[in-house]
Amino acid sequence: MKIALIQQKFHATKQTTLETTAYMIKEAAQNGAELVCLQELHTNKYFCQSENANFFDLGEHFADEVLYFSNVAKENGVVLVTSLFEKRGAGLYHNTAVVFEKDGRVAGKYRKMHIPDDPGFYEKFYFTPGDMGFKPIETSVGKLGVLVCWDQWYPEGARLMALSGAEILIYPTAIGWFDGDSVEEKTRQLDAWITIQRGHAVANGLPVVAINRVGFEKDCSGVLDGIRFWGNSFVAGPQGEMLISGDNENEEIIFCEIDKQRTEDVRRIWPFLRDRRIECYDGLLKRYID
Amino acid sequence: MKIALIQQKFHATKQTTLETTAYMIKEAAQNGAELVCLQELHTNKYFCQSENANFFDLGEHFADEVLYFSNVAKENGVVLVTSLFEKRGAGLYHNTAVVFEKDGRVAGKYRKMHIPDDPGFYEKFYFTPGDMGFKPIETSVGKLGVLVCWDQWYPEGARLMALSGAEILIYPTAIGWFDGDSVEEKTRQLDAWITIQRGHAVANGLPVVAINRVGFEKDCSGVLDGIRFWGNSFVAGPQGEMLISGDNENEEIIFCEIDKQRTEDVRRIWPFLRDRRIECYDGLLKRYID
Repeated sequence: MKIALIQQKFHATKQTTLETTAYMIKEAAQNGAELVCLQELHTNKYFCQSENANFFDLGEHFADEVLYFSNVAKENGVVLVTSLFEKRGAGLYHNTAVVFEKDGRVAGKYRKMHIPDDPGFYEKFYFTPGDMGFKPIETSVGKLGVLVCWDQWYPEGARLMALSGAEILIYPTAIGWFDGDSVEEKTRQLDAWITIQRGHAVANGLPVVAINRVGFEKDCSGVLDGIRFWGNSFVAGPQGEMLISGDNENEEIIFCEIDKQRTEDVRRIWPFLRDRRIECYDGLLKRYID
Repeated sequence: MKIALIQQKFHATKQTTLETTAYMIKEAAQNGAELVCLQELHTNKYFCQSENANFFDLGEHFADEVLYFSNVAKENGVVLVTSLFEKRGAGLYHNTAVVFEKDGRVAGKYRKMHIPDDPGFYEKFYFTPGDMGFKPIETSVGKLGVLVCWDQWYPEGARLMALSGAEILIYPTAIGWFDGDSVEEKTRQLDAWITIQRGHAVANGLPVVAINRVGFEKDCSGVLDGIRFWGNSFVAGPQGEMLISGDNENEEIIFCEIDKQRTEDVRRIWPFLRDRRIECYDGLLKRYID
Protein backbone atom coordinates (compact mmCIF):
# COMPACT_ATOMS: atom_id res chain seq x y z
CA MET A 1 0.00 0.00 0.00
CA LYS A 2 1.34 3.42 -0.98
CA ILE A 3 0.79 6.21 1.50
CA ALA A 4 1.52 9.95 1.33
CA LEU A 5 2.37 12.37 4.13
CA ILE A 6 1.65 16.00 3.35
CA GLN A 7 4.19 18.17 5.19
CA GLN A 8 3.04 21.79 4.93
CA LYS A 9 3.43 25.41 5.88
CA PHE A 10 0.60 27.73 6.78
CA HIS A 11 0.06 29.97 3.75
CA ALA A 12 -0.93 33.34 5.26
CA THR A 13 -4.67 32.66 4.87
CA LYS A 14 -6.88 29.69 5.50
CA GLN A 15 -8.21 29.76 1.94
CA THR A 16 -4.77 29.59 0.34
CA THR A 17 -3.74 26.89 2.77
CA LEU A 18 -6.84 24.80 2.01
CA GLU A 19 -6.19 25.13 -1.72
CA THR A 20 -2.55 24.14 -1.35
CA THR A 21 -3.55 21.13 0.73
CA ALA A 22 -6.16 20.05 -1.83
CA TYR A 23 -3.60 20.44 -4.59
CA MET A 24 -1.04 18.32 -2.76
CA ILE A 25 -3.62 15.62 -2.00
CA LYS A 26 -4.45 15.52 -5.70
CA GLU A 27 -0.78 15.14 -6.58
CA ALA A 28 -0.42 12.39 -3.96
CA ALA A 29 -3.41 10.52 -5.39
CA GLN A 30 -2.16 10.90 -8.95
CA ASN A 31 1.08 9.31 -7.83
CA GLY A 32 -0.73 6.30 -6.49
CA ALA A 33 -1.24 7.06 -2.80
CA GLU A 34 -4.25 5.25 -1.37
CA LEU A 35 -3.89 6.77 2.09
CA VAL A 36 -3.06 10.47 2.54
CA CYS A 37 -2.18 11.89 5.97
CA LEU A 38 -2.24 15.57 6.92
CA GLN A 39 -0.53 17.35 9.80
CA GLU A 40 -2.17 18.60 13.00
CA LEU A 41 -4.63 21.50 12.65
CA HIS A 42 -3.58 21.93 9.03
CA THR A 43 -6.36 24.34 8.05
CA ASN A 44 -5.02 27.17 10.21
CA LYS A 45 -1.89 28.59 11.68
CA TYR A 46 -0.99 26.91 14.96
CA PHE A 47 -3.20 29.25 17.01
CA CYS A 48 -2.36 27.72 20.42
CA GLN A 49 0.78 29.84 20.76
CA SER A 50 -1.22 32.17 22.97
CA GLU A 51 -4.49 32.06 24.91
CA ASN A 52 -7.00 34.18 23.04
CA ALA A 53 -10.72 33.57 23.29
CA ASN A 54 -11.24 35.00 19.80
CA PHE A 55 -9.48 31.97 18.36
CA PHE A 56 -12.46 29.84 19.32
CA ASP A 57 -14.01 31.35 16.19
CA LEU A 58 -11.77 28.99 14.25
CA GLY A 59 -13.72 26.06 15.64
CA GLU A 60 -16.99 27.36 14.19
CA HIS A 61 -16.08 26.02 10.77
CA PHE A 62 -15.71 22.37 11.72
CA ALA A 63 -18.77 21.21 9.75
CA ASP A 64 -17.66 23.16 6.66
CA GLU A 65 -14.18 21.70 6.87
CA VAL A 66 -15.55 18.18 7.20
CA LEU A 67 -17.61 18.78 4.07
CA TYR A 68 -14.63 20.25 2.24
CA PHE A 69 -12.32 17.33 2.97
CA SER A 70 -15.07 14.81 2.36
CA ASN A 71 -15.22 16.17 -1.17
CA VAL A 72 -11.43 16.18 -1.54
CA ALA A 73 -11.24 12.54 -0.41
CA LYS A 74 -14.02 11.55 -2.80
CA GLU A 75 -12.67 13.46 -5.79
CA ASN A 76 -9.28 11.84 -5.37
CA GLY A 77 -10.50 8.43 -4.23
CA VAL A 78 -8.19 8.31 -1.22
CA VAL A 79 -8.55 7.50 2.44
CA LEU A 80 -7.73 10.83 4.07
CA VAL A 81 -6.59 11.57 7.64
CA THR A 82 -7.34 15.18 8.62
CA SER A 83 -6.87 17.09 11.86
CA LEU A 84 -9.45 19.76 12.68
CA PHE A 85 -10.57 22.13 15.42
CA GLU A 86 -13.96 20.80 16.48
CA LYS A 87 -16.57 22.93 18.20
CA ARG A 88 -18.83 20.42 19.90
CA GLY A 89 -20.97 22.89 21.86
CA ALA A 90 -20.64 26.35 23.36
CA GLY A 91 -17.39 26.37 25.35
CA LEU A 92 -16.60 22.78 24.38
CA TYR A 93 -13.93 22.14 21.76
CA HIS A 94 -11.72 19.25 20.73
CA ASN A 95 -8.57 18.68 18.72
CA THR A 96 -10.08 16.09 16.41
CA ALA A 97 -8.77 13.86 13.67
CA VAL A 98 -11.43 13.04 11.10
CA VAL A 99 -10.79 10.15 8.71
CA PHE A 100 -12.56 9.97 5.35
CA GLU A 101 -13.19 6.95 3.16
CA LYS A 102 -12.39 6.94 -0.55
CA ASP A 103 -16.05 7.73 -1.29
CA GLY A 104 -16.06 10.75 1.02
CA ARG A 105 -17.91 9.15 3.93
CA VAL A 106 -16.58 9.85 7.43
CA ALA A 107 -14.90 6.59 8.44
CA GLY A 108 -14.35 7.73 12.01
CA LYS A 109 -13.05 10.37 14.38
CA TYR A 110 -10.43 10.50 17.11
CA ARG A 111 -10.41 13.26 19.71
CA LYS A 112 -6.90 13.98 21.01
CA MET A 113 -6.63 12.31 24.41
CA HIS A 114 -3.41 13.74 25.87
CA ILE A 115 -3.46 17.53 25.87
CA PRO A 116 -0.23 19.50 26.37
CA ASP A 117 0.21 22.85 28.00
CA ASP A 118 3.60 24.46 27.80
CA PRO A 119 4.78 27.95 26.94
CA GLY A 120 3.78 28.45 23.28
CA PHE A 121 1.57 25.34 23.26
CA TYR A 122 -1.43 26.39 25.36
CA GLU A 123 -3.67 23.54 24.31
CA LYS A 124 -5.37 22.98 27.65
CA PHE A 125 -7.02 26.38 27.13
CA TYR A 126 -8.51 25.34 23.80
CA PHE A 127 -9.13 21.62 23.86
CA THR A 128 -11.20 19.40 26.13
CA PRO A 129 -9.39 16.05 26.45
CA GLY A 130 -10.90 13.45 24.13
CA ASP A 131 -13.69 11.19 25.41
CA MET A 132 -13.72 8.59 22.65
CA GLY A 133 -10.83 6.52 23.95
CA PHE A 134 -8.11 4.90 21.88
CA LYS A 135 -10.06 3.18 19.13
CA PRO A 136 -8.66 2.43 15.68
CA ILE A 137 -10.71 3.63 12.73
CA GLU A 138 -11.79 0.95 10.27
CA THR A 139 -11.16 1.91 6.64
CA SER A 140 -10.80 0.21 3.27
CA VAL A 141 -7.00 0.38 3.65
CA GLY A 142 -6.96 -1.13 7.15
CA LYS A 143 -7.53 -0.28 10.80
CA LEU A 144 -5.86 3.05 11.42
CA GLY A 145 -4.60 3.92 14.91
CA VAL A 146 -4.93 7.68 14.58
CA LEU A 147 -3.49 9.65 17.50
CA VAL A 148 -2.48 13.30 17.64
CA CYS A 149 0.81 15.04 18.49
CA TRP A 150 1.27 15.05 22.32
CA ASP A 151 -0.12 11.48 22.32
CA GLN A 152 3.15 10.47 20.67
CA TRP A 153 4.99 10.80 23.99
CA TYR A 154 2.71 8.18 25.59
CA PRO A 155 3.45 4.48 25.11
CA GLU A 156 0.00 3.84 26.60
CA GLY A 157 -1.85 5.32 23.62
CA ALA A 158 0.22 3.38 21.11
CA ARG A 159 -0.24 0.12 23.04
CA LEU A 160 -4.00 0.57 23.42
CA MET A 161 -4.36 1.16 19.69
CA ALA A 162 -2.26 -1.93 18.95
CA LEU A 163 -4.26 -4.07 21.38
CA SER A 164 -7.42 -2.90 19.62
CA GLY A 165 -6.07 -4.16 16.33
CA ALA A 166 -4.59 -1.02 14.77
CA GLU A 167 -2.46 -1.96 11.77
CA ILE A 168 -0.63 1.35 11.58
CA LEU A 169 -0.21 4.31 13.94
CA ILE A 170 -0.66 7.79 12.46
CA TYR A 171 0.29 10.98 14.33
CA PRO A 172 -0.70 14.35 12.81
CA THR A 173 1.64 16.75 14.60
CA ALA A 174 2.63 20.39 15.10
CA ILE A 175 5.94 20.49 16.90
CA GLY A 176 8.92 22.77 16.54
CA TRP A 177 11.87 24.61 17.99
CA PHE A 178 12.27 27.89 19.76
CA ASP A 179 15.09 29.76 18.03
CA GLY A 180 16.58 30.72 21.39
CA ASP A 181 17.44 27.12 22.30
CA SER A 182 20.94 25.80 21.70
CA VAL A 183 21.72 23.57 18.74
CA GLU A 184 22.38 20.71 21.20
CA GLU A 185 18.97 21.12 22.83
CA LYS A 186 17.24 21.30 19.44
CA THR A 187 19.01 18.15 18.32
CA ARG A 188 18.02 16.31 21.49
CA GLN A 189 14.39 17.39 21.13
CA LEU A 190 14.05 16.32 17.49
CA ASP A 191 15.87 13.08 18.15
CA ALA A 192 13.71 12.30 21.20
CA TRP A 193 10.57 12.92 19.15
CA ILE A 194 11.69 10.50 16.44
CA THR A 195 13.07 7.94 18.88
CA ILE A 196 10.02 7.54 21.08
CA GLN A 197 7.77 7.04 18.07
CA ARG A 198 10.14 4.51 16.54
CA GLY A 199 9.99 2.88 19.98
CA HIS A 200 6.21 2.56 19.66
CA ALA A 201 6.75 0.81 16.33
CA VAL A 202 9.15 -1.65 17.98
CA ALA A 203 7.03 -2.28 21.07
CA ASN A 204 3.94 -2.98 19.01
CA GLY A 205 5.40 -4.42 15.82
CA LEU A 206 3.62 -2.04 13.48
CA PRO A 207 4.43 0.90 11.20
CA VAL A 208 4.31 4.42 12.62
CA VAL A 209 3.62 7.54 10.58
CA ALA A 210 4.24 11.08 11.86
CA ILE A 211 3.25 14.14 9.81
CA ASN A 212 4.60 17.45 11.04
CA ARG A 213 4.26 21.09 10.03
CA VAL A 214 7.15 23.21 8.68
CA GLY A 215 7.79 26.94 8.64
CA PHE A 216 8.18 29.68 11.22
CA GLU A 217 5.00 31.01 12.82
CA LYS A 218 5.24 34.18 14.87
CA ASP A 219 3.60 34.36 18.28
CA CYS A 220 1.00 37.05 17.54
CA SER A 221 0.69 37.87 21.26
CA GLY A 222 4.31 39.00 21.23
CA VAL A 223 5.11 37.11 24.44
CA LEU A 224 7.38 34.60 22.71
CA ASP A 225 9.11 34.93 19.35
CA GLY A 226 7.29 32.06 17.71
CA ILE A 227 7.76 28.43 16.75
CA ARG A 228 9.94 27.03 13.97
CA PHE A 229 8.08 23.84 13.12
CA TRP A 230 10.69 21.17 12.46
CA GLY A 231 9.08 19.00 9.78
CA ASN A 232 10.96 15.70 9.64
CA SER A 233 7.73 13.85 8.94
CA PHE A 234 8.61 10.17 8.77
CA VAL A 235 7.51 6.58 8.45
CA ALA A 236 9.05 3.79 10.54
CA GLY A 237 8.54 0.10 9.92
CA PRO A 238 7.49 -2.50 12.53
CA GLN A 239 11.06 -2.97 13.78
CA GLY A 240 11.31 0.79 14.22
CA GLU A 241 13.46 1.02 11.09
CA MET A 242 13.30 4.41 9.39
CA LEU A 243 11.67 3.98 5.99
CA ILE A 244 11.63 7.61 4.90
CA SER A 245 11.86 11.08 6.34
CA GLY A 246 11.17 14.65 5.21
CA ASP A 247 13.47 17.61 5.81
CA ASN A 248 13.10 20.31 8.43
CA GLU A 249 11.94 23.30 6.40
CA ASN A 250 10.26 22.46 3.11
CA GLU A 251 6.77 21.61 2.08
CA GLU A 252 6.76 18.18 0.53
CA ILE A 253 4.78 15.09 -0.17
CA ILE A 254 6.52 12.08 1.35
CA PHE A 255 5.57 8.81 -0.27
CA CYS A 256 6.09 5.44 1.37
CA GLU A 257 5.23 1.88 0.52
CA ILE A 258 3.83 0.04 3.53
CA ASP A 259 4.02 -3.76 3.56
CA LYS A 260 1.39 -4.91 6.03
CA GLN A 261 2.70 -8.47 5.94
CA ARG A 262 5.82 -7.22 7.76
CA THR A 263 3.77 -6.82 10.96
CA GLU A 264 2.83 -10.48 10.88
CA ASP A 265 6.44 -11.50 10.15
CA VAL A 266 8.01 -9.26 12.80
CA ARG A 267 5.52 -10.23 15.50
CA ARG A 268 6.36 -13.89 14.82
CA ILE A 269 10.03 -13.34 15.63
CA TRP A 270 9.35 -10.77 18.36
CA PRO A 271 6.13 -11.94 20.01
CA PHE A 272 6.03 -9.22 22.64
CA LEU A 273 2.24 -9.30 22.98
CA ARG A 274 2.48 -12.93 24.11
CA ASP A 275 4.43 -12.16 27.26
CA ARG A 276 2.78 -9.07 28.75
CA ARG A 277 2.26 -9.46 32.53
CA ILE A 278 -1.24 -8.04 32.53
CA GLU A 279 -1.95 -9.26 36.06
CA CYS A 280 0.89 -7.02 37.30
CA TYR A 281 0.06 -3.83 35.42
CA ASP A 282 -2.55 -2.32 37.79
CA GLY A 283 -0.14 0.46 38.69
CA LEU A 284 -0.48 1.82 35.15
CA LEU A 285 -3.93 3.05 36.14
CA LYS A 286 -2.45 5.15 38.92
CA ARG A 287 -1.16 8.71 38.67
CA TYR A 288 1.90 7.80 40.75
CA ILE A 289 2.69 4.85 42.95
CA ASP A 290 3.49 6.53 46.25
CA MET B 1 27.46 10.15 40.08
CA LYS B 2 29.92 7.98 38.15
CA ILE B 3 28.65 4.59 37.04
CA ALA B 4 30.37 1.68 35.33
CA LEU B 5 28.93 -0.94 32.99
CA ILE B 6 30.93 -4.16 32.80
CA GLN B 7 30.56 -5.61 29.30
CA GLN B 8 31.98 -9.14 29.32
CA LYS B 9 32.60 -12.44 27.60
CA PHE B 10 32.18 -15.83 29.19
CA HIS B 11 35.70 -17.09 29.95
CA ALA B 12 35.46 -20.86 29.37
CA THR B 13 34.89 -21.59 33.07
CA LYS B 14 32.78 -20.05 35.75
CA GLN B 15 35.79 -19.58 38.03
CA THR B 16 37.78 -17.60 35.46
CA THR B 17 34.72 -15.57 34.60
CA LEU B 18 34.05 -14.73 38.25
CA GLU B 19 37.66 -13.66 38.70
CA THR B 20 37.58 -11.48 35.60
CA THR B 21 34.36 -9.87 36.77
CA ALA B 22 35.78 -9.18 40.22
CA TYR B 23 38.90 -7.70 38.64
CA MET B 24 36.87 -5.41 36.38
CA ILE B 25 34.68 -4.29 39.30
CA LYS B 26 37.85 -3.42 41.20
CA GLU B 27 39.14 -1.41 38.28
CA ALA B 28 35.78 0.37 37.98
CA ALA B 29 35.83 1.26 41.67
CA GLN B 30 39.41 2.48 41.52
CA ASN B 31 38.35 4.79 38.72
CA GLY B 32 35.65 6.32 40.86
CA ALA B 33 32.51 4.36 39.95
CA GLU B 34 29.98 4.34 42.77
CA LEU B 35 27.51 2.11 40.93
CA VAL B 36 28.67 -0.92 38.94
CA CYS B 37 26.28 -2.84 36.68
CA LEU B 38 26.83 -6.36 35.35
CA GLN B 39 25.22 -8.10 32.39
CA GLU B 40 22.53 -10.78 32.52
CA LEU B 41 23.52 -14.16 34.00
CA HIS B 42 27.15 -13.05 34.02
CA THR B 43 28.49 -15.94 36.12
CA ASN B 44 27.87 -18.53 33.41
CA LYS B 45 27.64 -18.99 29.69
CA TYR B 46 24.18 -18.16 28.39
CA PHE B 47 22.84 -21.66 29.06
CA CYS B 48 19.31 -21.02 27.72
CA GLN B 49 20.38 -21.73 24.13
CA SER B 50 18.93 -25.22 24.58
CA GLU B 51 16.56 -26.96 26.97
CA ASN B 52 18.61 -29.23 29.17
CA ALA B 53 17.49 -30.20 32.66
CA ASN B 54 21.12 -30.63 33.76
CA PHE B 55 21.57 -26.87 33.51
CA PHE B 56 19.33 -26.46 36.55
CA ASP B 57 22.48 -27.45 38.45
CA LEU B 58 23.73 -23.94 37.73
CA GLY B 59 20.98 -22.54 39.93
CA GLU B 60 22.22 -24.52 42.95
CA HIS B 61 24.95 -21.98 43.58
CA PHE B 62 22.74 -18.95 44.05
CA ALA B 63 23.54 -18.52 47.76
CA ASP B 64 27.29 -18.87 47.11
CA GLU B 65 27.15 -16.33 44.34
CA VAL B 66 25.24 -13.87 46.52
CA LEU B 67 27.94 -14.26 49.17
CA TYR B 68 30.70 -13.86 46.59
CA PHE B 69 29.31 -10.63 45.16
CA SER B 70 28.39 -9.31 48.57
CA ASN B 71 32.10 -9.50 49.38
CA VAL B 72 33.10 -7.94 46.07
CA ALA B 73 30.71 -5.02 46.64
CA LYS B 74 31.99 -4.53 50.18
CA GLU B 75 35.68 -4.78 49.28
CA ASN B 76 35.26 -2.18 46.58
CA GLY B 77 32.70 -0.01 48.35
CA VAL B 78 30.33 0.09 45.38
CA VAL B 79 26.64 -0.44 44.83
CA LEU B 80 26.61 -3.52 42.60
CA VAL B 81 23.86 -4.77 40.26
CA THR B 82 24.25 -8.50 39.56
CA SER B 83 22.14 -10.95 37.58
CA LEU B 84 21.98 -14.51 38.87
CA PHE B 85 20.21 -17.83 38.34
CA GLU B 86 18.14 -18.31 41.49
CA LYS B 87 16.95 -21.69 42.67
CA ARG B 88 14.04 -20.89 44.95
CA GLY B 89 12.84 -24.44 45.52
CA ALA B 90 12.88 -27.80 43.75
CA GLY B 91 11.66 -27.15 40.22
CA LEU B 92 11.29 -23.42 40.87
CA TYR B 93 13.89 -21.05 39.43
CA HIS B 94 14.08 -17.35 38.61
CA ASN B 95 16.25 -15.04 36.55
CA THR B 96 17.06 -12.68 39.40
CA ALA B 97 18.91 -9.42 39.71
CA VAL B 98 20.46 -8.97 43.15
CA VAL B 99 21.60 -5.49 44.15
CA PHE B 100 24.26 -5.01 46.83
CA GLU B 101 24.97 -1.96 48.97
CA LYS B 102 28.46 -0.55 49.40
CA ASP B 103 28.78 -2.44 52.68
CA GLY B 104 27.86 -5.76 51.09
CA ARG B 105 24.28 -5.95 52.34
CA VAL B 106 21.62 -7.09 49.88
CA ALA B 107 19.75 -3.88 49.01
CA GLY B 108 17.07 -5.73 47.09
CA LYS B 109 16.15 -8.23 44.39
CA TYR B 110 14.21 -8.15 41.17
CA ARG B 111 12.92 -11.31 39.52
CA LYS B 112 12.64 -10.97 35.74
CA MET B 113 8.96 -10.42 34.96
CA HIS B 114 8.76 -10.85 31.18
CA ILE B 115 10.23 -14.18 30.09
CA PRO B 116 11.12 -14.79 26.43
CA ASP B 117 11.02 -18.01 24.54
CA ASP B 118 12.43 -18.03 21.06
CA PRO B 119 14.77 -20.38 19.22
CA GLY B 120 18.09 -20.10 21.07
CA PHE B 121 16.52 -18.26 24.00
CA TYR B 122 14.49 -20.96 25.76
CA GLU B 123 13.94 -19.04 28.96
CA LYS B 124 10.40 -20.21 29.65
CA PHE B 125 11.90 -23.65 30.28
CA TYR B 126 14.25 -22.35 32.97
CA PHE B 127 12.63 -19.35 34.61
CA THR B 128 9.36 -18.89 36.46
CA PRO B 129 8.09 -15.36 35.72
CA GLY B 130 8.90 -13.00 38.57
CA ASP B 131 6.39 -12.47 41.37
CA MET B 132 7.87 -9.41 43.02
CA GLY B 133 6.39 -6.85 40.64
CA PHE B 134 8.12 -3.78 39.29
CA LYS B 135 9.59 -2.22 42.42
CA PRO B 136 12.68 0.00 42.42
CA ILE B 137 15.46 -0.95 44.80
CA GLU B 138 16.45 1.69 47.33
CA THR B 139 20.22 2.19 47.59
CA SER B 140 22.67 4.80 48.79
CA VAL B 141 23.07 6.02 45.18
CA GLY B 142 19.34 6.31 44.52
CA LYS B 143 16.25 4.26 43.69
CA LEU B 144 17.27 1.81 40.99
CA GLY B 145 14.68 0.51 38.54
CA VAL B 146 16.37 -2.80 37.80
CA LEU B 147 14.75 -4.82 35.02
CA VAL B 148 16.22 -7.67 32.97
CA CYS B 149 16.70 -8.14 29.22
CA TRP B 150 13.33 -9.12 27.64
CA ASP B 151 11.70 -6.55 29.96
CA GLN B 152 13.36 -3.92 27.81
CA TRP B 153 10.83 -4.47 25.04
CA TYR B 154 7.96 -3.54 27.39
CA PRO B 155 7.07 0.13 27.97
CA GLU B 156 4.88 -1.10 30.83
CA GLY B 157 7.82 -2.24 32.97
CA ALA B 158 9.70 1.01 32.44
CA ARG B 159 6.62 3.10 33.24
CA LEU B 160 5.78 1.14 36.40
CA MET B 161 9.32 1.59 37.68
CA ALA B 162 9.17 5.32 36.94
CA LEU B 163 5.79 5.69 38.63
CA SER B 164 7.27 3.96 41.69
CA GLY B 165 10.00 6.57 41.84
CA ALA B 166 12.89 4.88 40.04
CA GLU B 167 15.62 7.42 39.29
CA ILE B 168 17.41 5.29 36.72
CA LEU B 169 16.48 2.17 34.73
CA ILE B 170 19.09 -0.60 34.54
CA TYR B 171 18.80 -3.58 32.18
CA PRO B 172 21.31 -6.45 32.53
CA THR B 173 21.02 -8.16 29.15
CA ALA B 174 22.16 -11.10 27.02
CA ILE B 175 21.16 -10.44 23.44
CA GLY B 176 22.90 -11.15 20.18
CA TRP B 177 22.82 -12.03 16.53
CA PHE B 178 22.56 -15.27 14.64
CA ASP B 179 25.36 -15.29 12.06
CA GLY B 180 22.94 -16.55 9.43
CA ASP B 181 20.88 -13.35 9.44
CA SER B 182 21.53 -10.67 6.84
CA VAL B 183 23.49 -7.54 7.71
CA GLU B 184 20.29 -5.52 7.21
CA GLU B 185 18.35 -7.69 9.67
CA LYS B 186 21.17 -7.52 12.21
CA THR B 187 21.28 -3.74 11.90
CA ARG B 188 17.52 -3.47 12.38
CA GLN B 189 17.64 -5.71 15.45
CA LEU B 190 20.45 -3.84 17.19
CA ASP B 191 18.92 -0.49 16.32
CA ALA B 192 15.47 -1.56 17.56
CA TRP B 193 17.01 -2.71 20.85
CA ILE B 194 18.73 0.63 21.37
CA THR B 195 15.77 2.68 20.14
CA ILE B 196 13.08 1.18 22.35
CA GLN B 197 15.22 1.66 25.46
CA ARG B 198 16.05 5.24 24.53
CA GLY B 199 12.27 5.58 24.10
CA HIS B 200 11.76 4.48 27.72
CA ALA B 201 14.20 7.22 28.76
CA VAL B 202 12.18 9.80 26.83
CA ALA B 203 8.75 8.59 27.98
CA ASN B 204 9.80 8.63 31.61
CA GLY B 205 12.40 11.39 31.69
CA LEU B 206 15.13 9.33 33.31
CA PRO B 207 18.46 7.76 32.39
CA VAL B 208 18.52 4.22 31.02
CA VAL B 209 21.45 1.82 31.33
CA ALA B 210 21.77 -1.40 29.32
CA ILE B 211 24.63 -3.83 29.94
CA ASN B 212 25.04 -6.57 27.35
CA ARG B 213 27.31 -9.56 26.87
CA VAL B 214 29.87 -9.90 24.06
CA GLY B 215 31.46 -12.89 22.37
CA PHE B 216 30.26 -15.89 20.42
CA GLU B 217 28.77 -18.76 22.40
CA LYS B 218 28.19 -22.04 20.60
CA ASP B 219 24.87 -23.84 21.00
CA CYS B 220 26.13 -26.99 22.78
CA SER B 221 23.02 -28.92 21.66
CA GLY B 222 24.13 -28.49 18.06
CA VAL B 223 20.63 -27.48 16.92
CA LEU B 224 21.63 -23.90 16.16
CA ASP B 225 25.11 -22.52 15.53
CA GLY B 226 25.14 -20.24 18.52
CA ILE B 227 24.69 -16.60 19.48
CA ARG B 228 27.05 -13.73 18.77
CA PHE B 229 26.26 -11.40 21.68
CA TRP B 230 26.28 -7.86 20.31
CA GLY B 231 27.58 -5.80 23.23
CA ASN B 232 26.75 -2.15 22.56
CA SER B 233 26.09 -1.59 26.24
CA PHE B 234 25.00 2.02 26.60
CA VAL B 235 23.69 4.82 28.76
CA ALA B 236 21.00 7.22 27.55
CA GLY B 237 20.03 10.43 29.31
CA PRO B 238 16.48 11.51 30.24
CA GLN B 239 15.79 12.94 26.77
CA GLY B 240 16.90 9.63 25.28
CA GLU B 241 20.20 11.19 24.23
CA MET B 242 23.02 8.67 23.87
CA LEU B 243 25.65 9.42 26.52
CA ILE B 244 28.03 6.58 25.81
CA SER B 245 28.11 3.20 24.12
CA GLY B 246 30.40 0.16 24.01
CA ASP B 247 31.41 -1.69 20.88
CA ASN B 248 30.03 -4.99 19.61
CA GLU B 249 32.81 -7.44 20.38
CA ASN B 250 35.18 -6.39 23.14
CA GLU B 251 35.16 -6.69 26.89
CA GLU B 252 35.23 -3.24 28.39
CA ILE B 253 34.32 -1.11 31.32
CA ILE B 254 32.09 1.73 30.19
CA PHE B 255 32.11 4.71 32.51
CA CYS B 256 29.42 7.36 32.54
CA GLU B 257 28.66 10.39 34.65
CA ILE B 258 24.95 10.55 35.54
CA ASP B 259 23.51 13.94 36.49
CA LYS B 260 20.35 13.19 38.46
CA GLN B 261 19.30 16.84 38.37
CA ARG B 262 18.67 16.40 34.62
CA THR B 263 15.56 14.31 35.37
CA GLU B 264 14.05 17.17 37.34
CA ASP B 265 14.96 19.66 34.59
CA VAL B 266 13.71 17.53 31.70
CA ARG B 267 10.44 16.62 33.41
CA ARG B 268 9.78 20.34 33.96
CA ILE B 269 9.92 21.05 30.23
CA TRP B 270 8.33 17.73 29.24
CA PRO B 271 5.79 17.00 31.99
CA PHE B 272 4.46 13.79 30.47
CA LEU B 273 3.47 12.30 33.81
CA ARG B 274 1.07 15.22 34.35
CA ASP B 275 -1.15 14.37 31.38
CA ARG B 276 -1.58 10.59 31.51
CA ARG B 277 -5.24 9.61 30.93
CA ILE B 278 -5.31 7.02 33.68
CA GLU B 279 -9.11 6.76 33.61
CA CYS B 280 -8.86 5.54 30.01
CA TYR B 281 -6.05 2.99 30.36
CA ASP B 282 -8.08 -0.03 31.54
CA GLY B 283 -7.39 -1.81 28.28
CA LEU B 284 -3.72 -2.07 29.25
CA LEU B 285 -4.76 -4.76 31.71
CA LYS B 286 -6.19 -6.85 28.89
CA ARG B 287 -4.36 -9.39 26.75
CA TYR B 288 -6.04 -8.04 23.62
CA ILE B 289 -9.05 -5.81 23.12
CA ASP B 290 -11.24 -7.95 20.91
